Amino acid sequence: MNYITEDKLVILGAAGAIGSNMAQAALTLGLTPNVCMYDPFEKGLQGAAEELYHCAFPGARVTWTTDIAEALQGAKYLVSSGGAPRKEGMTREDLLKGNAEIAAQLGKDIKANCPDLAFGVIIFNPADITGLTVLVHSGLAPSKIGTLAALDSTRLQTALAQHFGVAQDDVTGCRTYGGHGEMMAVFAGETKVAGTPLTELIGTDRLTEEQWEAIRQHVCQGGKKIIQLRGRSSFQSPSHQSLLMIKAVMDGQGYPWPSGVYVNDPANGFDKIMMAMETTLDRNGLTAAMPRGSDRDVAALKESYQHLCKLRDEVIEMGVLPPLDQWTTVNPNL
Amino acid sequence: MNYITEDKLVILGAAGAIGSNMAQAALTLGLTPNVCMYDPFEKGLQGAAEELYHCAFPGARVTWTTDIAEALQGAKYLVSSGGAPRKEGMTREDLLKGNAEIAAQLGKDIKANCPDLAFGVIIFNPADITGLTVLVHSGLAPSKIGTLAALDSTRLQTALAQHFGVAQDDVTGCRTYGGHGEMMAVFAGETKVAGTPLTELIGTDRLTEEQWEAIRQHVCQGGKKIIQLRGRSSFQSPSHQSLLMIKAVMDGQGYPWPSGVYVNDPANGFDKIMMAMETTLDRNGLTAAMPRGSDRDVAALKESYQHLCKLRDEVIEMGVLPPLDQWTTVNPNL
Repeated sequence: MNYITEDKLVILGAAGAIGSNMAQAALTLGLTPNVCMYDPFEKGLQGAAEELYHCAFPGARVTWTTDIAEALQGAKYLVSSGGAPRKEGMTREDLLKGNAEIAAQLGKDIKANCPDLAFGVIIFNPADITGLTVLVHSGLAPSKIGTLAALDSTRLQTALAQHFGVAQDDVTGCRTYGGHGEMMAVFAGETKVAGTPLTELIGTDRLTEEQWEAIRQHVCQGGKKIIQLRGRSSFQSPSHQSLLMIKAVMDGQGYPWPSGVYVNDPANGFDKIMMAMETTLDRNGLTAAMPRGSDRDVAALKESYQHLCKLRDEVIEMGVLPPLDQWTTVNPNL
Repeated sequence: MNYITEDKLVILGAAGAIGSNMAQAALTLGLTPNVCMYDPFEKGLQGAAEELYHCAFPGARVTWTTDIAEALQGAKYLVSSGGAPRKEGMTREDLLKGNAEIAAQLGKDIKANCPDLAFGVIIFNPADITGLTVLVHSGLAPSKIGTLAALDSTRLQTALAQHFGVAQDDVTGCRTYGGHGEMMAVFAGETKVAGTPLTELIGTDRLTEEQWEAIRQHVCQGGKKIIQLRGRSSFQSPSHQSLLMIKAVMDGQGYPWPSGVYVNDPANGFDKIMMAMETTLDRNGLTAAMPRGSDRDVAALKESYQHLCKLRDEVIEMGVLPPLDQWTTVNPNL
């Protein structure tokens, strides 16, 4: 079996549904044989590791540990699904307090144990804030930490494909930006359905304004439908898409969806935030570009940004993030 | 994304832990874009399918249905994880009655809907009996239906690697044959640990008779350790290894573990049974060969065979399988 790299990939939260799926999928995708599984829950972690041993991936060297320093030592890649899970009826923002503290500690642990990290993906909610908090405390360059933001776009693609009865691939250019929460900005401008611009379809019999609004709402509610159907949060799609982000940095072959990225772009009105933007993921990590959209789209993005600023400022008030003017002291790369 | 084939793969039990993992892993492995998910539990099935849509596998055409005829129509490949799950404290044999009936119905459904099946893997327990029951009722050639038997061998490999502190790949030739249950035959004769025959290690300070017996017992208890650690049956390794069996038939690149196969070999003392043998899996499906082993190993295999015969005969008495002398009437390929 050929792996893209021999570099160490650490999966944090590896006893959980997302993390254990990720360990398996990382090997199935052939990312690296060097997978380290970390979780504070030893019994479940050992059980998940045993499952992987029984898979008998050729050449795999899967390790597991409940010691975060040991887990991170020498890591080049990291995905963190750790954090409290989202329960039915909870908004992502409800999770803010506890998970921000977990993120701050993770950032410090990265700084202490794997300052040469090539790329880390943070996926525990609210990911925009936890990703930002990890980045600030890690001391890493902004290109090295991203958050999973693709699922909003793939949910939009799925919903449109189902509405129009076309193959999912025939719906192109689906893009949501800004917060990965109920205030996300759904950009319809670049979306096409079997070649026809979505903007030409909205408000017609094929997709009434009401239908479009329902789809938009559905997408903004994120994984709510999965929770209702399965009785649990989504775990397969977060696992798969996070690993594709890692893969893009490993192999330089690109990643087709937006990612959450650190944005400090006062010229465009964005100041010290992490949110989904148009992004490039390659061997150098993550870079952001301004999304293209209508005035209405851009206004929605700014509104989403404002919402994230409020959350960020709450975390600053909690003392989990330093005041904005001290960020470069904590992390000179910002 | 390149897939090995465009042929339809049906996953039965796709709302469950094994089945939903399998749908994801089938696409991740690049088997086929044409994956059909079946389960009687509609809500969970739709949720699992939605997860796959959100993964956005390029070119994938994932469908789901609660109609078994629709699911099987035109299927070339099939994995069935359907059946009642094994609970803590239950032996595989406890599951016999209910699952044999499910298997008989599946065989009939295959006969009615996908007589051109290229290969099907049956993994619900007791798999030796459910696989046999599916085969008899399906009317298919014995090369077309197999059962998952690898996990006993990979568990043996894992346990020996952990005992000796070597990489898993350094333990070679691990083989268990016969029943996939507590009566399995562990063949130690071909096993090597970092090049040293296991038979030279057993009874030394490096692996006392007691330690070897403990490992053997551990392997014979199958997934018990996973249930104890995770609080649930294994699902990742059954998913992965079943798909590797399907992959071997799709791409002809081989499969390194034993599989459960129909054996009707009176010269060697085996009559109308399905059990793990040394097997070849290629584009023609499954073929069996007599395992190589010591007299003691072969005696254990015969004992395991006798145990399976008893289970098979119970199923015949239940009326779920026809009497042995009528099998060729039901399935002329036997």
